[in-house]
Amino acid sequence: MTDPRILKVRPGPEDYAWTFGGAPPVARIAPGTVLDLYTEDCFAGRVRSEYTEDCFAGRVRSEKDLVSVVCEFPFLNPQTGPFHIEGAEPGDTVAVHFVSVEPARDWAASTTVPLFGALTSTHATATLQPPLPERVWIWQLDRTRRTALFRARDSDLELELPLDPMHGTVGVAPSNLEVRSALVPDAHGGNMDTPEMRAGVTCYLGVNVEGALLSLGDGHARQGEGETCGVAVECAMNTVVIVDLLKDVATPWPRLESDTHLISTGSARPLEDAFRISQLDLVQWLVRDYGFGELDAYQFATQAVESPVANVCDTNYTCVAKLRKEWLPARQPHRGLHARLRETARTLRL
Amino acid sequence: MTDPRILKVRPGPEDYAWTFGGAPPVARIAPGTVLDLYTEDCFAGRVRSEYTEDCFAGRVRSEKDLVSVVCEFPFLNPQTGPFHIEGAEPGDTVAVHFVSVEPARDWAASTTVPLFGALTSTHATATLQPPLPERVWIWQLDRTRRTALFRARDSDLELELPLDPMHGTVGVAPSNLEVRSALVPDAHGGNMDTPEMRAGVTCYLGVNVEGALLSLGDGHARQGEGETCGVAVECAMNTVVIVDLLKDVATPWPRLESDTHLISTGSARPLEDAFRISQLDLVQWLVRDYGFGELDAYQFATQAVESPVANVCDTNYTCVAKLRKEWLPARQPHRGLHARLRETARTLRL
Amino acid sequence: MTDPRILKVRPGPEDYAWTFGGAPPVARIAPGTVLDLYTEDCFAGRVRSEYTEDCFAGRVRSEKDLVSVVCEFPFLNPQTGPFHIEGAEPGDTVAVHFVSVEPARDWAASTTVPLFGALTSTHATATLQPPLPERVWIWQLDRTRRTALFRARDSDLELELPLDPMHGTVGVAPSNLEVRSALVPDAHGGNMDTPEMRAGVTCYLGVNVEGALLSLGDGHARQGEGETCGVAVECAMNTVVIVDLLKDVATPWPRLESDTHLISTGSARPLEDAFRISQLDLVQWLVRDYGFGELDAYQFATQAVESPVANVCDTNYTCVAKLRKEWLPARQPHRGLHARLRETARTLRL
Amino acid sequence: MTDPRILKVRPGPEDYAWTFGGAPPVARIAPGTVLDLYTEDCFAGRVRSEYTEDCFAGRVRSEKDLVSVVCEFPFLNPQTGPFHIEGAEPGDTVAVHFVSVEPARDWAASTTVPLFGALTSTHATATLQPPLPERVWIWQLDRTRRTALFRARDSDLELELPLDPMHGTVGVAPSNLEVRSALVPDAHGGNMDTPEMRAGVTCYLGVNVEGALLSLGDGHARQGEGETCGVAVECAMNTVVIVDLLKDVATPWPRLESDTHLISTGSARPLEDAFRISQLDLVQWLVRDYGFGELDAYQFATQAVESPVANVCDTNYTCVAKLRKEWLPARQPHRGLHARLRETARTLRL
Repeated sequence: MTDPRILKVRPGPEDYAWTFGGAPPVARIAPGTVLDLYTEDCFAGRVRSEYTEDCFAGRVRSEKDLVSVVCEFPFLNPQTGPFHIEGAEPGDTVAVHFVSVEPARDWAASTTVPLFGALTSTHATATLQPPLPERVWIWQLDRTRRTALFRARDSDLELELPLDPMHGTVGVAPSNLEVRSALVPDAHGGNMDTPEMRAGVTCYLGVNVEGALLSLGDGHARQGEGETCGVAVECAMNTVVIVDLLKDVATPWPRLESDTHLISTGSARPLEDAFRISQLDLVQWLVRDYGFGELDAYQFATQAVESPVANVCDTNYTCVAKLRKEWLPARQPHRGLHARLRETARTLRL
Repeated sequence: MTDPRILKVRPGPEDYAWTFGGAPPVARIAPGTVLDLYTEDCFAGRVRSEYTEDCFAGRVRSEKDLVSVVCEFPFLNPQTGPFHIEGAEPGDTVAVHFVSVEPARDWAASTTVPLFGALTSTHATATLQPPLPERVWIWQLDRTRRTALFRARDSDLELELPLDPMHGTVGVAPSNLEVRSALVPDAHGGNMDTPEMRAGVTCYLGVNVEGALLSLGDGHARQGEGETCGVAVECAMNTVVIVDLLKDVATPWPRLESDTHLISTGSARPLEDAFRISQLDLVQWLVRDYGFGELDAYQFATQAVESPVANVCDTNYTCVAKLRKEWLPARQPHRGLHARLRETARTLRL
Repeated sequence: MTDPRILKVRPGPEDYAWTFGGAPPVARIAPGTVLDLYTEDCFAGRVRSEYTEDCFAGRVRSEKDLVSVVCEFPFLNPQTGPFHIEGAEPGDTVAVHFVSVEPARDWAASTTVPLFGALTSTHATATLQPPLPERVWIWQLDRTRRTALFRARDSDLELELPLDPMHGTVGVAPSNLEVRSALVPDAHGGNMDTPEMRAGVTCYLGVNVEGALLSLGDGHARQGEGETCGVAVECAMNTVVIVDLLKDVATPWPRLESDTHLISTGSARPLEDAFRISQLDLVQWLVRDYGFGELDAYQFATQAVESPVANVCDTNYTCVAKLRKEWLPARQPHRGLHARLRETARTLRL
Repeated sequence: MTDPRILKVRPGPEDYAWTFGGAPPVARIAPGTVLDLYTEDCFAGRVRSEYTEDCFAGRVRSEKDLVSVVCEFPFLNPQTGPFHIEGAEPGDTVAVHFVSVEPARDWAASTTVPLFGALTSTHATATLQPPLPERVWIWQLDRTRRTALFRARDSDLELELPLDPMHGTVGVAPSNLEVRSALVPDAHGGNMDTPEMRAGVTCYLGVNVEGALLSLGDGHARQGEGETCGVAVECAMNTVVIVDLLKDVATPWPRLESDTHLISTGSARPLEDAFRISQLDLVQWLVRDYGFGELDAYQFATQAVESPVANVCDTNYTCVAKLRKEWLPARQPHRGLHARLRETARTLRL
């Protein structure tokens, strides 16, 4: 029997959102709600005529399915949601605790996309060179052994990597009356593409509009740091999250918290600005919640921080700044919410 | 009794180099030589008149020693070397295996420096704002417990971090007839400031001039990724390296190899260019030494790479791209040199 | 008697738009319509309660009116419009010919804004430094002598500059289902802040949604290239434009045409990407309309182009690439529309 | 009869410098010396064996002479000099007044260079794409009509542009004990590639080493702003300069002064940092020499500045910030030196 505390959401093809902001909520939920969600992969997209659920979902499912042929801008990166969180107002913070993130299929797809990615010129880093060849890799997922199998296209090479499922895109409606494509990461979250967004972490997002309008998608069976070619091991997901609300706590840029780390993010171009935002946010976190003076926090973070790149391919680049909690004084950041959600998660019957 | 294979080098105040290229070699060594080196901290510097060895070494040794007062540009970041490696010619690669990197003192210093660092405007990111306050932190090192003690300046906070000794600066003479300050990281290595440069790794540097002219310095008792405030836990070091030579192997950008990882680096501005260089180098490494096709390597690295930032404060920023060897086919990159040097290191009587 | 071909639009306080996309059209117009518009200055903004038209318009009207006090985000940079252009569809191009741009008041305002501008850290180029002081300058405009008078705040210095009225913001609804703040420049136009947008030029904008949804605002009595402090000599304007439509002509990035120049623009970060976009667009313009091969166009433009910076303060930076028509073969780009609109403008009774 | 005040310098193939700093002076000159110089084009280069003066000079002289074949790194961009200026010491400023800059041949060459230029990936903006095709254009110069003739390679198009001769490279030995390639622009000047460096202007360069060690080269028959493809209309030059010295005047970044404009420069990456440096320098110029308060100067320059890009292809990018003198109070910046040198130039018998 399903846990009665859990709201199960299985969107139909018409139910996905393609933007943060600008889409009507699919449900209103109370803080504390557990959502059992299905998210489609980033290639799933609306087909205007004669579509069926099947063709919605499976746009890139073989090595022959080139993105430039089977996908239609802007109907890329479908988001499950948005959810209107009751009581959420600008100045508050939404917390999304990831209870589990599990691949919904036994395969995943990755590709090159013309003029997209870090090791190619793009529409912004514009050159006269032709794009790289378009190519698809289908990865086999072994959900028992927790592996993803890479099969080379130009040789017989086969290599296994560990599964490390995550969501590339988690966000709320943006500020400034804006509506942003689901492909964009910014202060509202969105397409940050950090592998830190995995089961066990809590993501904090500042609320910009009434109800927050939370949505998520873009599951990755795994992803390297930087998402270099622009596309991870893209996979539909079954994901359980607990959504909660911190009243009167502002969160200018998305933060994550795990059992072991405080994690700040920043999204901007050039990449050093994303780095600056994430590091300054971490410094301010130490000041607000851990009793540091500002320059002391700057000094301490300088020596202690881990700074993995998240993405260097999207419309903004994203950097992460991580600090081990065990090196810090014992405190309860964000009113101890992560620990409480972690505890709640343990009690769920999934 | 000292191992007769080891050349011990203890530079006097006049013996340090302030540049890569342009300084006469302090010794000629054969490939395979083990160097037992002393390196001064980055604040040590030449004083033109009446100096003594003591004041050379100890420019920042208390909270009162502000860099802007006690240090004199360009006499910062002294390098031990350069060493002329016999037989090294352009087109070859020098290998520097770090056997041990040990703090030479029981304290280390860090500071803010006016208009230097990631969270301040600088001489390049020029603004009308005044610089941040100048402040010094003296860290106590416990070499038995392997910890560094942070004492806050604005509160009573005291926190311990693990020692993780490394060298911020390792390089050879640059190409193009240039001489570069020891504060600069670029294709010749130099001031890359990556915490990956620790005991147990082998650093590969492409040779640009006859004899290579290797030097190193800038020891850090530990450093976060990005060296956010511009200054790590700066410390004099006793360091043992084995220097070797790979004839007819080109290394366009510095590479590191550990028992567990292949590690490429790139140094440039903006930071995304440093990222691009390091990731492309890793892709090309997979192609050259692991039998990947180029697009297959791009895809595989995208899903497997770790991408920590090294520094976002120096004249070029540095990014690192790391890949776990266990996920790759079993091969011997760089002719298996790392494994051999590791073995040699085990036999040394230090 | 007013020219019957002219549609006069004088918006009330409720009639302005704060975004590109997402706002309902204020009027539907046929291609060829002449619009006689009033635009408010960038500081004008909605006040939720008890507002009067007067306080809407005059938020910064003396040296005491600090932006951080009198303005309310996101109600900044009000746009007159949007106008639904009949027949405009994605893949078409809207042409906006500026017949006249005249200051509507005899004064204009400029300011520093905390953490905004090129010579300060910002929310993206984030540092620990405090913001620059906030200060207002009121410029007196002499519309007869065509001058703007600068009065220094810290001395008795008074200097005159020539009036050179322009619009900082001209754009259409963006692509990808997005709604963007009127403060943003991007491929849809928007807040490009180039002084080239003056009387006598035609601005070409690619259509992304049915009806295009054109709006404009942000008049500047004059502006230097780069809008260094982030704020020009901001002024309400009386502006006459002719709006026309080029069916089946795509315009990926905004272009301008004057009697003397072809002008391409690009908006991105870092600034070199804005440069690349604008230069590539100019190369492609030479290829499409002037019979150049691509590499020939690259070579010719390299030697002939003028490349003034437009803004280095907004959420994207904007670069301009200009080429003298007299140096090119005689052709009629964009179907000769600029010349025809210029002729029509001469026949208007304003 | 030649003016006895003039020192004529016609370097032999062995006499050129390839770096700023690190090359012995070719002559010692007193402040006030007039130099009548010959400079080779950027493609001229040393050939180690069997070279003759002829082959030194003419590496790219037909459409068949590809840079990658006929040129040898680092022997590119030869500089005439360096000149040791008697009495020049760190903290002083060297002034170089360009009396005349005249093409020494009736042809000039331009090319694409693999992985160099703004509209291609490069060694820093590294991608997996192949380089653009390598192509040479030979421009015919008509020194009577003052035109340069472009002949398209892919069509019959022939177009004339005005001659506007200039020097891409002017600089002194750098600071910090460095030696920089003649291809690098930085605070010491060098390869700034701004078309502002033409006859009639005075260039001010801060002195870093005793004697300053001034050299110049890289003549361009003309160049667009940004030097988009990386190569201008490259030409040997006969150039007359007056070299003078301002004792105890510091010039952190190169400045130019013409009869009409104050001109600041900045060279850095990303391009916005070059912009920031140049604009801040202009603001500081107004403060030091024109009696502005700092924020007043920021405001005034914002509204008055012209900001053409100089180069977006070299190892640092260069921006220019220009202000019309007629808009400023009447002052004599740099002790009125430009006006005096202009007067001296008029009296020369060339």
